[in-house]
Amino acid sequence: MHIAIPLYPRFTALDAVGPYTVMAFAPGFTVTFVAASPGPVPDDRGGSGLTATASYADLPHPDVIIVPGGPGTAEALSDRELVGWIGRAHERTRWTASVCSGSFLLGAAGLLAGRRATSHWGWLDRLAAFGAEPVSERVVVDGRIVTAAGVSAGIDMALTLLARVSDAETARAVQLAIEYDPDPPFDAGSAGGAPADLRERALGLIA
Amino acid sequence: MHIAIPLYPRFTALDAVGPYTVMAFAPGFTVTFVAASPGPVPDDRGGSGLTATASYADLPHPDVIIVPGGPGTAEALSDRELVGWIGRAHERTRWTASVCSGSFLLGAAGLLAGRRATSHWGWLDRLAAFGAEPVSERVVVDGRIVTAAGVSAGIDMALTLLARVSDAETARAVQLAIEYDPDPPFDAGSAGGAPADLRERALGLIA
Repeated sequence: MHIAIPLYPRFTALDAVGPYTVMAFAPGFTVTFVAASPGPVPDDRGGSGLTATASYADLPHPDVIIVPGGPGTAEALSDRELVGWIGRAHERTRWTASVCSGSFLLGAAGLLAGRRATSHWGWLDRLAAFGAEPVSERVVVDGRIVTAAGVSAGIDMALTLLARVSDAETARAVQLAIEYDPDPPFDAGSAGGAPADLRERALGLIA
Repeated sequence: MHIAIPLYPRFTALDAVGPYTVMAFAPGFTVTFVAASPGPVPDDRGGSGLTATASYADLPHPDVIIVPGGPGTAEALSDRELVGWIGRAHERTRWTASVCSGSFLLGAAGLLAGRRATSHWGWLDRLAAFGAEPVSERVVVDGRIVTAAGVSAGIDMALTLLARVSDAETARAVQLAIEYDPDPPFDAGSAGGAPADLRERALGLIA
């Protein structure tokens, strides 16, 4: 099973590495970071720089693609090479997935028309511009397209996806291997009910 | 505020990128991946290769260090350059932290004698060999040393640590920015109560 995760400048590292880790722990799964050309790709914080080991041309038809989000999505929407690769790869994928604002790139590739989909809470409504029905859920499955809410939701999405690509027992074993028994120190991760000043402060941290 | 995350061969990517993302979203925080020498460092799955941008010598006294774990910890325990850097850096850090088996590296640096500490559930008991009291909790704070359970626990740990390094409101804003409102699809992330065959299968995925 071959999973491809495209990287583009100013992606958010956890969007990519959460699903990468979940999938790469599954037996028989290979996960490859791809980009316009192989090499390091700068993330949104300037500190990460994951390395793509293949170009889009090297990997035209992976079994699954998972598109991360990040502040760089805005510019990536007009990256015809990336958006074109997503659209062509999707024609043959078993599953096509996104994390956070990565769903906008699925939208730009024309994959979300008439579909339920999600994204980061800060920009969820804008999915409608791609003909999608924005859904405020953490993980949304519509046909063979799976979209996740912001950043950390990629971990929940990847476990959900792994259970479908493989089986629930494999997903449960990976969840235990990565000890994913979350216990956030604050009840602050959901925008629903968050005070306006906290929402503004959170959005300010992203840009 | 300068955070350093050391990378060594066969670290687990999410151990490093979970805390990296939390800390790098905080205003005024800089996070640097360090290694024996700058350049890509292979992770445990062969697909990631985060890039270290500084050497240990370049960054002897960061404010905070966060040591990731992974299958490579076993060999890293005899990496005198890494263990020596951890010990010397700790003399002046405000906080010294670890994720997963990274706590063994704190132990090898002599930092855990007489302290409560945690690690991945699969190897928790072995912390006693370093004079530590193994504690089956997700995040353990003892003095200015903070240890986290396996892999994904680094996100909870980093939010806890950020609240102490900065303040709770900053940690809450970051939690909302990365939409960390976890909702795992299975109740399988804790070893307590997990059937023996699932535990064995999970450990088999790591090695």
